[in-house]
Amino acid sequence: MARSINLAVIPGDGIGPEVVAQGLKVLEAVLPADIKVETTRYDLGAKRWHETGETLTDAELERLRGHDAILLGAIGDPTVPSGVLERGLLLKLRFAFDHYINLRPSRLFPNTASPLAGDPEIDFVVVREGTEGPYVGNGGSMRTGTPAEVATEVSLNTAYGVERVVRDAFERASARPARKLTLVHKNNVLVHAGHLWTRTVERVGREYPDVTTDYLHVDAATIFMVTDPGRFDVIVTDNLFGDILTDLAAAITGGIGLAASGNINPGGEFPSMFEPVHGSAPDIAGTGKADPTATVLSVALLLRHLGHETEAVRIEEAVTADLAERDGTARSTDAIGDALAARVAG
Amino acid sequence: MARSINLAVIPGDGIGPEVVAQGLKVLEAVLPADIKVETTRYDLGAKRWHETGETLTDAELERLRGHDAILLGAIGDPTVPSGVLERGLLLKLRFAFDHYINLRPSRLFPNTASPLAGDPEIDFVVVREGTEGPYVGNGGSMRTGTPAEVATEVSLNTAYGVERVVRDAFERASARPARKLTLVHKNNVLVHAGHLWTRTVERVGREYPDVTTDYLHVDAATIFMVTDPGRFDVIVTDNLFGDILTDLAAAITGGIGLAASGNINPGGEFPSMFEPVHGSAPDIAGTGKADPTATVLSVALLLRHLGHETEAVRIEEAVTADLAERDGTARSTDAIGDALAARVAG
Ligand SMILES: CC(C)[C@H](C(=O)O)[C@@H](O)C(=O)O
Ligand SMILES: CC(C)[C@H](C(=O)O)[C@@H](O)C(=O)O
Repeated sequence: MARSINLAVIPGDGIGPEVVAQGLKVLEAVLPADIKVETTRYDLGAKRWHETGETLTDAELERLRGHDAILLGAIGDPTVPSGVLERGLLLKLRFAFDHYINLRPSRLFPNTASPLAGDPEIDFVVVREGTEGPYVGNGGSMRTGTPAEVATEVSLNTAYGVERVVRDAFERASARPARKLTLVHKNNVLVHAGHLWTRTVERVGREYPDVTTDYLHVDAATIFMVTDPGRFDVIVTDNLFGDILTDLAAAITGGIGLAASGNINPGGEFPSMFEPVHGSAPDIAGTGKADPTATVLSVALLLRHLGHETEAVRIEEAVTADLAERDGTARSTDAIGDALAARVAG
Repeated sequence: MARSINLAVIPGDGIGPEVVAQGLKVLEAVLPADIKVETTRYDLGAKRWHETGETLTDAELERLRGHDAILLGAIGDPTVPSGVLERGLLLKLRFAFDHYINLRPSRLFPNTASPLAGDPEIDFVVVREGTEGPYVGNGGSMRTGTPAEVATEVSLNTAYGVERVVRDAFERASARPARKLTLVHKNNVLVHAGHLWTRTVERVGREYPDVTTDYLHVDAATIFMVTDPGRFDVIVTDNLFGDILTDLAAAITGGIGLAASGNINPGGEFPSMFEPVHGSAPDIAGTGKADPTATVLSVALLLRHLGHETEAVRIEEAVTADLAERDGTARSTDAIGDALAARVAG
């Protein structure tokens, strides 16, 4: 448990800076006085790219590496060609810092309407692989823009990469009451990658006899997500399927405004990065409509990762209480941040 | 409009034979007496594979090619290693017969509960590419089963393949009242394939000025699918994203028991194949619990493809009426088939 936190902050684009400000507010409020937070702001994102053509330099990557953790708001803007910031900044960080655990808890909070009828109980966590699969950027195109164009995307999967995320997921599953792990893939079509995942879950699973495992194809998983989300406890899945499933999971738990995530390098060789699942939402930037709760919950994941479990729980309980007691009137980004900061300080 | 239909029938595994029997019953009932249906049954699937080790021989492929269309029940069984039947039979047919349009309409029928609150209006169609993308089977693994294993899956995308499905989708969109086409991809991560799709929709779209187009990342598309499904009219997307989205679409429209699909070769060079979206559901095989409606609706798509529009509409109207008038008591596979056959004959 660190007595000080040397935090890198990447507010990013759109609503990113607004929600990050609230996340920092709650972070300051929750920590005991003797734990100092030092923040260094990195102005990366669309503005920087427009001004300099740069997304993330090697020097910045090196400086970022010196931090204990990174808090990120959101990256992306319609004025920047699709993929430039995602590949050049967000994914570059995840890959460079070996964030092989992309952790995304999904919980239906009290007083939060799910689009699903009957407000089912939902409380699962997706352990999404973060450094392999179709995200590796191993693709290309030839004869681009001609009628003879061919474009490829290669999904790369290694025993090394799959085993470590599967192991992490088993650890998490064995620490939860339901002790259930569901592998999601598409091993009847993507047979090579799929069978690597399936075999790995079977093999590692033998070391966790108290964890029940099952398997779902990704298409079937989306069905259960809306018809029986209570069946899920821990889901382990590849980078792309995890991306899709966690947005769906956010939607059924009352929206992307509440979904937190951690890009984690468990060994601590590199700083881990915490960010809301939602994007930069440029359409509501500056209106005060952005919900900072997902960022605040990401701060809780950050604190847990750094060993401050008590403070992490305090934030999560504050969010639960705040949602339980809200009366339905719209609150500004700032008002939600203030309310949560007041609760955790209390 | 053919005066006779030379139909290949592949009942397949699990509930496949049961639902196909009802599909054929309704087909016979709906056609005027002067249109003859000749059916040839192909016993392919798990049983055949266990007995002979074969999935689909070249000779069978050649014979299947001589038919006007194929009606397929479902393929797959837990006793067969995952991928063997899917790749060796189902996908082999789709690829060999160049089924580049995988057509999947999604409609919330009357009196059918959606898991979504408030039973929203849902009526869209997914035009899923059927012969490219991550489904091409271009992958492999090395050092298989060792800690140094590497497994790949290559998504192949061509201007030729993308343009023809995009064109088909624009044609369908321009014939619908809302005239809206949504491209779903992940062009901020899978930039090469994604940009090929995006550029193609932009270019072809110039020929369809009356069709509104928009773009969604696949993760965001799953959110809208559960929060605002009414926003969709025609969706065009790649093979894998289409697989995922159409299962989700089936789920929100009251279940996989109602979702029909067509694997279409529009030019008619090869026979098109029609099948319910659901799988072989071995757990309920033989219990009479399988809902044959998805197969019956697939027969409607088959008839439409062969030029029998009147009969296709008659089936669709019969399904709508049947669902509207049902009283909630469970009906057997056979009873539903009988009810639909009686309606279309009437
Ligand atoms: C912005 C994008 C690159 C990113 C992803 O696909 O991982 C986002 O959707 C997410 O889920 O964090
Ligand atoms: C069985 C499987 C190969 C198939 C697919 O992935 O296309 C199925 O899920 C479908 O949607 O028709």
